[in-house]
Amino acid sequence: MKLRQVGEFGLIQRIERLARHIHGSAVALGIGDDAALLRAKAGEDIAVTSDAFVEGVHFRFDHESPRTAGRRALAATLSDLAAMGARPLGFTLSLSVAPDREVDRVLAVVKGGLEVAAEHACPLVGGNVAASESFELHLTALGAVTRGRALGRAGGRPGDHLFLSGPVGRSALERARGRVKHVPEPRIALGRALAWTGRVSACIDVSDGVLADLAHLCRASGVGARLRVPELPRPVGFEAACRRAGREPEELLLAGGEDYELLFSVRGSAPIDLPPELAATTSLVPVGVLARGGLEVVGGQGGVADSGRESGGWRHF
Amino acid sequence: MKLRQVGEFGLIQRIERLARHIHGSAVALGIGDDAALLRAKAGEDIAVTSDAFVEGVHFRFDHESPRTAGRRALAATLSDLAAMGARPLGFTLSLSVAPDREVDRVLAVVKGGLEVAAEHACPLVGGNVAASESFELHLTALGAVTRGRALGRAGGRPGDHLFLSGPVGRSALERARGRVKHVPEPRIALGRALAWTGRVSACIDVSDGVLADLAHLCRASGVGARLRVPELPRPVGFEAACRRAGREPEELLLAGGEDYELLFSVRGSAPIDLPPELAATTSLVPVGVLARGGLEVVGGQGGVADSGRESGGWRHF
Repeated sequence: MKLRQVGEFGLIQRIERLARHIHGSAVALGIGDDAALLRAKAGEDIAVTSDAFVEGVHFRFDHESPRTAGRRALAATLSDLAAMGARPLGFTLSLSVAPDREVDRVLAVVKGGLEVAAEHACPLVGGNVAASESFELHLTALGAVTRGRALGRAGGRPGDHLFLSGPVGRSALERARGRVKHVPEPRIALGRALAWTGRVSACIDVSDGVLADLAHLCRASGVGARLRVPELPRPVGFEAACRRAGREPEELLLAGGEDYELLFSVRGSAPIDLPPELAATTSLVPVGVLARGGLEVVGGQGGVADSGRESGGWRHF
Repeated sequence: MKLRQVGEFGLIQRIERLARHIHGSAVALGIGDDAALLRAKAGEDIAVTSDAFVEGVHFRFDHESPRTAGRRALAATLSDLAAMGARPLGFTLSLSVAPDREVDRVLAVVKGGLEVAAEHACPLVGGNVAASESFELHLTALGAVTRGRALGRAGGRPGDHLFLSGPVGRSALERARGRVKHVPEPRIALGRALAWTGRVSACIDVSDGVLADLAHLCRASGVGARLRVPELPRPVGFEAACRRAGREPEELLLAGGEDYELLFSVRGSAPIDLPPELAATTSLVPVGVLARGGLEVVGGQGGVADSGRESGGWRHF
């Protein structure tokens, strides 16, 4: 069935029905009014981030299922809350789509996104549906973080140690092969735990690629860094898989994006204490150090590093 | 100059520069990090609303200037905060646009929007830029409203009096003539004042058209209404202008949207007291009453009324 057969309100109703089971403790007024009302706790700031997913640019149905596309969209948006150390309160979805598209395909994308939202208790609280020649999801996520505890990009200082929360390069390898199956988890629980340590000076999620995102962090903090390529965590069998795909492992490690691991700097040399349930599943891998001066890539083959500071990662035009 | 010549980050930089002068007292961390941080006052809820503006659907450059298109986009989004009685805290802009579009035209749209944002002290706190074949602005506005004071659609009761905050039909008439010049003001100050009276049982902004929006309000409140067509406020010379444009005045009054006046119901018969600065510029016009049963249109010519409950106003598909 085509969208034009169910109509704008028919589509909205179906989306609302799919979203209804996701409850959020912060929702004072949910979907359906002129605006939703969210209630943070006393002493919390509201984190807000917007992201877009455009067919043909961010997702392609010949590379991945509608469900995977939707999961990736929500994961990417919630990952920005994770990088701030915020807990999700809710999100809005502004959907553009052509009236001649199949209802089931559009709903499958939305359903994929709602799965990830449900996993993080992040209810859909509003949005919009518009006719367009382009199929686009524009997502805005709201979170809450205790005042003064938010992780930002700007607090890094020379000498702070750099860590990665998990392997990078997997998403880029899948894209290189033209089939996307793995959807990274937004590191919500880890971001909150890191915020609570009070020792993380700067944090970013790896969306553009390690090198580009490290450059963002360094620029915001007004520092340089030394990144040790051999220590970058990578998936098991990564080098062999890259060679089979005809790609240079180092390029995918440094410039591949959308892994959504957290890249962060820590004051002092004491180990980071994580709550037991996180410590059991998460390895925080030291990958370098913040420093004065520029961004130095150590132990690599060269080539990628030079382009990393300004042009690493994905650019839209 | 084309967008592809300045690049994604070049465009983002230019937008940031245009937006820099808009300060908001609630911004703890502005544009440029993974998320922005907004700080409401103790006892306030966060209102959040998303809206989309798609070229060819919501705006056309042969009908209006880029500046007017941008102003209308922000006005429509902030109007949803007005309808909740919220004060604006900030907004995000997720922009889709083709790399071969002119930078100046895109920036003129954004600049128009920022004018309206500045008028309401609503800073740009984040967003996204994506390549797309479609030119789209997806806006999310955040506001704050004292807990328990928010206006919603659902509190209307039989016997409550219906008011409009100003004339309707002007935007529909301009669209009918194919040239859009007038940009309605979002009724932010009025919405906040109405919320403070504690006597407004339900409120909606006229975006889809009086009849469609009244139907939304009635459905949410579980009531009917009697709307008196002759009392609907309209622009000076409206009937004659409609006839010149070959349009039925009643149709544009009842089904024309995008006027962004507030349509609201009031408990009791005492007049609504507005602060002096608002009282001097605003007439609250009684246009009907909430009632049991259906939605009745009184004193009109008929024709529009029948279609009003379900299909009045704009539909996307």
